[in-house]
Amino acid sequence: MSLLSEKSFILENWNIALPVTIILLVTVYLISKRKKTDLDGAEYIGADNSIKTDENCYEDTEFTPSLDDKDHVLFPGAKVVLDGGATKFYEIVNDRRSVRKFSKKPVPFEIIKQCIQAAGTAPSGAHTEPWTFCVIADETIKNEIRDIIETEEYLNYSQRMHRQWTTDLKPLKTNHVKEYLSDAPYLILIFKQIYGIRNDGKKKQHYYNEISVSIATGILLCALQAAGLNSLVTTPLNCGPALRTLLNRPNNEKLLVLLPVGYAAEDCKVPDLRRKDVDEILFTY
Amino acid sequence: MSLLSEKSFILENWNIALPVTIILLVTVYLISKRKKTDLDGAEYIGADNSIKTDENCYEDTEFTPSLDDKDHVLFPGAKVVLDGGATKFYEIVNDRRSVRKFSKKPVPFEIIKQCIQAAGTAPSGAHTEPWTFCVIADETIKNEIRDIIETEEYLNYSQRMHRQWTTDLKPLKTNHVKEYLSDAPYLILIFKQIYGIRNDGKKKQHYYNEISVSIATGILLCALQAAGLNSLVTTPLNCGPALRTLLNRPNNEKLLVLLPVGYAAEDCKVPDLRRKDVDEILFTY
Repeated sequence: MSLLSEKSFILENWNIALPVTIILLVTVYLISKRKKTDLDGAEYIGADNSIKTDENCYEDTEFTPSLDDKDHVLFPGAKVVLDGGATKFYEIVNDRRSVRKFSKKPVPFEIIKQCIQAAGTAPSGAHTEPWTFCVIADETIKNEIRDIIETEEYLNYSQRMHRQWTTDLKPLKTNHVKEYLSDAPYLILIFKQIYGIRNDGKKKQHYYNEISVSIATGILLCALQAAGLNSLVTTPLNCGPALRTLLNRPNNEKLLVLLPVGYAAEDCKVPDLRRKDVDEILFTY
Repeated sequence: MSLLSEKSFILENWNIALPVTIILLVTVYLISKRKKTDLDGAEYIGADNSIKTDENCYEDTEFTPSLDDKDHVLFPGAKVVLDGGATKFYEIVNDRRSVRKFSKKPVPFEIIKQCIQAAGTAPSGAHTEPWTFCVIADETIKNEIRDIIETEEYLNYSQRMHRQWTTDLKPLKTNHVKEYLSDAPYLILIFKQIYGIRNDGKKKQHYYNEISVSIATGILLCALQAAGLNSLVTTPLNCGPALRTLLNRPNNEKLLVLLPVGYAAEDCKVPDLRRKDVDEILFTY
């Protein structure tokens, strides 16, 4: 056992060999973690990184689909469409603007509910429907949300965001003060569920959950506009965990966006923006 | 200079000290890279990771906003709405299903154009409008796209995707053969622009570009349904670079989703799915 002998180089230099070994292991671990993101789209497979591409690691597990495996049914194509079609639809959504000053005028909850029902028709990876819509009407909770966001946004604007970012936001006249969070009759907090729980208690992977929930958000915006309501898509930087805790949401839900919803205030102003022409965004082949 | 003396511990053990130093530096570098992702949302700031939060690194650069800094204008609220409001809108979008078998029946290009125009009204981080819609009608290019995707998807299904993933897809009866890519009259490839180019030639950051483009995709789906068209949101795993090259798109564009668009085939079948009830996705506070 020469390695353990009095003359062993490693034992003699244990005070160097031990940290070297630890550092080597940490380095290998960090590099192996980084390698995993090489597969395009792998970040959507499930944010807990528990999916392995190596078959053997699941050898003794049975695989059952998360959905029931039923016969498919005939589909006659789109039947409930819009009078006026694509032209009319464009006119409706082109009237939408992001609004930062809301009236306190109440909005019937039933309309909000129908809009969220519409959002829930979005497609999702393997039909996982990985969305949660929290609707806040309570004044106290709205004020608590405003407190959390304004505190973080002050740090974002003053310290975390690069000056180019805050400069880019200047024409939109935004800052860390968010009156709309207490003025708007509703706040809708949209969470992406990064995984789900199956009936058998196992974790259910939510493939491409961020894209799916963002698509649902797009449908929600159309529904709100169709109903004559105004909103604003916000992404409160670094507020997710505090808001999740405040609303007592489970660990698998991460805040994606927050929308104040209601009617624009009478003196509401918006940036004098133009949208890109269709020729700037559409390319034909 | 005791460190450089004959008795110097470091010099005597240089064969250990040198690797230790290198490994330490690599470890510190890797850990510092990882630390950057701690800031919630930082991954959306720009996929080229060139934004620094350290102010000093841009000290000698002038900051000008990407948008013109004009006076804001009065906004009267949503005026162009849907007859029937949220109820009617829900009926329309609830009729949408993801379709995997398309008729070859032609669709006027004008309708596709109007739908994309509608998608282009989506909100985006700092009004960057970071989307490109490539519409493919050419049969040869459609077949080239099908070749690229079927080759990759064969590898995805057989090797890259975990068996739980392919099992979860079984009720949807999907595999690597994608007839809809050549049958549908149009393929719409939606690219997210991870950065833009300003008028002064500088890089323009596209904040939260993936969320923005996914929201635009949600609006596009509503527009297509409003026009009586069917589609399918697909995320061709690992095909992005090949498709970008085929279409000769610039480096700042990354494929987000691909949609075949047209009318459902007469014998089109869809999975016998239910959607979650609104009470399963909506929580009130």
